[in-house]
Amino acid sequence: MHRVFNFAAGPSALPIEVLKTIHEELFDWKGMGASVLEISHRSKQFTETIEETGELIKELYGINSDYEVLFVQGGGHLQFAMIPLNLQFLGRGAYAVNGVWSAKAFKEASKISQAGIAAQVEKRVPLEEELKTEGAGFLYYCSNETVNGIQYHYVPKSKCVLACDMSSDFLSKPVDVSKYGVIFAGAQKNFGPAGLTVVIVRKDLLGKCGESTPTMLDYQTYAKSLSMFNTPPVFSIYVANLVAKWIKKQGGVEEMYRRSLLKSELLYSAIDQSGGFYYNDVKKEDRSLMNVVFNLKNPELEQEFIESAKKEDLFNVKGHRIVGGMRASIYNAVSVEGTQKLADFMKRFAIEHG
Amino acid sequence: MHRVFNFAAGPSALPIEVLKTIHEELFDWKGMGASVLEISHRSKQFTETIEETGELIKELYGINSDYEVLFVQGGGHLQFAMIPLNLQFLGRGAYAVNGVWSAKAFKEASKISQAGIAAQVEKRVPLEEELKTEGAGFLYYCSNETVNGIQYHYVPKSKCVLACDMSSDFLSKPVDVSKYGVIFAGAQKNFGPAGLTVVIVRKDLLGKCGESTPTMLDYQTYAKSLSMFNTPPVFSIYVANLVAKWIKKQGGVEEMYRRSLLKSELLYSAIDQSGGFYYNDVKKEDRSLMNVVFNLKNPELEQEFIESAKKEDLFNVKGHRIVGGMRASIYNAVSVEGTQKLADFMKRFAIEHG
Repeated sequence: MHRVFNFAAGPSALPIEVLKTIHEELFDWKGMGASVLEISHRSKQFTETIEETGELIKELYGINSDYEVLFVQGGGHLQFAMIPLNLQFLGRGAYAVNGVWSAKAFKEASKISQAGIAAQVEKRVPLEEELKTEGAGFLYYCSNETVNGIQYHYVPKSKCVLACDMSSDFLSKPVDVSKYGVIFAGAQKNFGPAGLTVVIVRKDLLGKCGESTPTMLDYQTYAKSLSMFNTPPVFSIYVANLVAKWIKKQGGVEEMYRRSLLKSELLYSAIDQSGGFYYNDVKKEDRSLMNVVFNLKNPELEQEFIESAKKEDLFNVKGHRIVGGMRASIYNAVSVEGTQKLADFMKRFAIEHG
Repeated sequence: MHRVFNFAAGPSALPIEVLKTIHEELFDWKGMGASVLEISHRSKQFTETIEETGELIKELYGINSDYEVLFVQGGGHLQFAMIPLNLQFLGRGAYAVNGVWSAKAFKEASKISQAGIAAQVEKRVPLEEELKTEGAGFLYYCSNETVNGIQYHYVPKSKCVLACDMSSDFLSKPVDVSKYGVIFAGAQKNFGPAGLTVVIVRKDLLGKCGESTPTMLDYQTYAKSLSMFNTPPVFSIYVANLVAKWIKKQGGVEEMYRRSLLKSELLYSAIDQSGGFYYNDVKKEDRSLMNVVFNLKNPELEQEFIESAKKEDLFNVKGHRIVGGMRASIYNAVSVEGTQKLADFMKRFAIEHG
């Protein structure tokens, strides 16, 4: 089997140990005589698995009993609608917009309810004092802008309820969940395959939707039913369960954070020490530990960079189609070894073409 | 590896050939050096797969170019909301209610818009002349009531646009799609794993949602983006692709239908010829070819029936928790051989306990 170093932005690499377990168990899961792809979500075995997955997330983040962990479908974009539908009883949302995903969330919220801008900046995160939340019921932000390579390294203090899109840095570092009203994350970056979204919601915020809100867009539906009001994405939850156990075994979110600092430092050093061959124009203290974006001074070399990287089994380093350039996503399952290999390649390529 | 005969109502059995392919390809999909669980949905390989899956559905049903095939998340219950949100421009829905799922669809539609009852009956499907659609914009029905074991064996003629929940008999028989406005189906019965819903929609019905409709609840969002406005459930679509190819190879929906007639006949004969030991009180001509529900005259024998069946590797024959009794679901991937084994067991059990 040929496996490459996969720097895809999502869906993205899974730990090889997780893939091996899926492979081993595929035909007969937990002695049921059937695949996990074929079993009832109401079976004892799966009910235990979905419960355990929620408990593992609570344990990894140290979440207290004021919160529910929900498993939802529909991706981040459905959350962009569910957040205002579930929180509009608090008042309008104030949106901090500093990249592609927070902009999309604001746009969707504006369709559904009143929404305002808390701050709008580029290539950085807003300063805490820039966030305007007067008259707002909740403050919304995206903790890591995958496309733009910008990450919050602080949690905004606000009188408002905090709602946060953690899709691309979920379970990658310690988080004090008690500061938040709602956190959501698509699983397909740090936590599993596509088709699953995790929502962490404070219980006092549940059950406040308008009567005409579709049942599947009401967080309460999931909270009341162990996320099984209807058939959940069984396989995706099973994989997320394996990933959560893998994170715990590696040393938890603290260890994921330690590795992220190490991995991102390898790449940012390669950029900063290239004498301008590569550049990243995100404000330094706001650079993402998950998605390292960079450009080549000579954009004509981009295609050659991508092709040469591929020859060394370094895959998916092309930037998002909206912004161009390069991007290496170094989520939990991307190894320090693979990242080192990419950093070494970058240095060599710069010397050869500088 | 130990594999049982799996009569689960959904999620349910997959063809063993499909599981073997997943197993073989798990670590390195299409030479990408990464698992299908790890690759970008925007990759050429996956884009081709999602396109091909739509084309296969069109081919299997003989769908003309007036229709789009969409891949959605959220299950049937999200469709219960999406149908009225997308079709209310036509006027209110008239709902034919004859089982658990059509009742749920009506309840959800009533939350979201005006909805009326076209007919309300039990243990049978409504007669065509019973369906009242005066003043309605669309007629909604559920072609197969999984819990109650009732199936439409005709397509209602109506001046209204037809909307149909085919979750539990999708791709199990020929369907003249041109009679419908919208068809939807959760994949997890006849077509793949949980976490994927297929929608077939006539193009002239697209783009008529209200402005405040969440983007992910508008069929047009999917039609315009090859179902990739955001990250689709990649793995579920991959498995659905394999199942579609498997159905085609077996001889298409015609062959699935031939087998369904055979399998259901085996079980209904065992019931009807048991001298009242087993009974099924659905009107005979409306019995489901997918979910054979039955009761034991002596309900005290139910647990023993289930346990004894298990000893012969006949699993998941317990009825839905709402209605009790027994239920054997014989979707596409359930073999004639396994069904024969269950029928033989039923006869033997009746003789031993009669």
